[in-house]
Amino acid sequence: MDLRRQQLVEIGSELFAKRPYDEVGVEEIAAAAGVSRGLLYHYFPTKRDFFIEVVRRHVTQVGELTDSDASLSPLDDLRGTLDAYIAYVDENAQSWVTVHRAGIGSDAEVRALLESSYASQVERILGRMTGGGEAPPVLELAVRGWLGFAIATMIDWLEHRQLEPEALRELLVQGLKGVVAAACDADPSITLVGLEAAD
Amino acid sequence: MDLRRQQLVEIGSELFAKRPYDEVGVEEIAAAAGVSRGLLYHYFPTKRDFFIEVVRRHVTQVGELTDSDASLSPLDDLRGTLDAYIAYVDENAQSWVTVHRAGIGSDAEVRALLESSYASQVERILGRMTGGGEAPPVLELAVRGWLGFAIATMIDWLEHRQLEPEALRELLVQGLKGVVAAACDADPSITLVGLEAAD
Repeated sequence: MDLRRQQLVEIGSELFAKRPYDEVGVEEIAAAAGVSRGLLYHYFPTKRDFFIEVVRRHVTQVGELTDSDASLSPLDDLRGTLDAYIAYVDENAQSWVTVHRAGIGSDAEVRALLESSYASQVERILGRMTGGGEAPPVLELAVRGWLGFAIATMIDWLEHRQLEPEALRELLVQGLKGVVAAACDADPSITLVGLEAAD
Repeated sequence: MDLRRQQLVEIGSELFAKRPYDEVGVEEIAAAAGVSRGLLYHYFPTKRDFFIEVVRRHVTQVGELTDSDASLSPLDDLRGTLDAYIAYVDENAQSWVTVHRAGIGSDAEVRALLESSYASQVERILGRMTGGGEAPPVLELAVRGWLGFAIATMIDWLEHRQLEPEALRELLVQGLKGVVAAACDADPSITLVGLEAAD
């Protein structure tokens, strides 16, 4: 991506992080970036095109901050990831909620970006749980469901702040243990690495 | 709602239940209903207006089939509700997925309808859990999160059918117990009625 384009996406990310999508106008983005409307339209023909790049940046950043640390136990690895993720979500509250509520609609590109981000998060968690083996379908179902739990919980938390960030992280970790236990009830053949013994 | 309008919504619900939103055209809806395009547009100026009525019908139906049965224990009450809900979701797979993926976008009316449906489902579950008392904020957070878990799990299940419907229902029930246990860990002051003792 060329540098000017990248700078525009960064500035847009900051604007969308603090205020709802519908309230941020193209003129405002251009003004904040110190460029003309015409130049902005040259790079991004519509506001939606622009927002898709913001989503792409968000997905890339989340992918980086949720990199797995194999030196930790699976649960502590997850704790580290969730601490980083919660801090990121906190800082980018508006755009995160917009993206995860599909707040700009059924855009196929946004959907594809999110699906790929979800898939890699699920794969990463499953990989740690199964020690890199093939994940049983019911376990995969439960972990995909847990991602829905985590997202719904964080959306509600951003609005109400019922817990300190560390307590929220622990709610998510214990919630994962709970749904994984439910998956093991549903399919007794599931064997896990590093989740059953930990606190 | 007048009868003709109601019939159109019913026919639309059937079409949207089986095929994706983008693939169902206004002409097809009019043809299936045996009315002119003009009459359809008279009742529903846009396809989106039409779909909003389909969502409204969906929310009403879900509200009815998830009515609480106070003669049952909270968990068995939930089981009955989930069995009915899973059967409904199964029958209306496409439109249910479209609605819950916010597949037609940031429409404020769709969002408001869903929010109100979610709120009453959460309130109902919390009411049974707390015996009708005020729900602690962390418990409410966990149950809202669980609804995200249930929706994400059902979307994935509709695609992959990893489990029989009864086993899916039990995964959801045990998942709720898991996240409620996590909420109790996060806030030891939480007291519940009828969840801790049950299987």
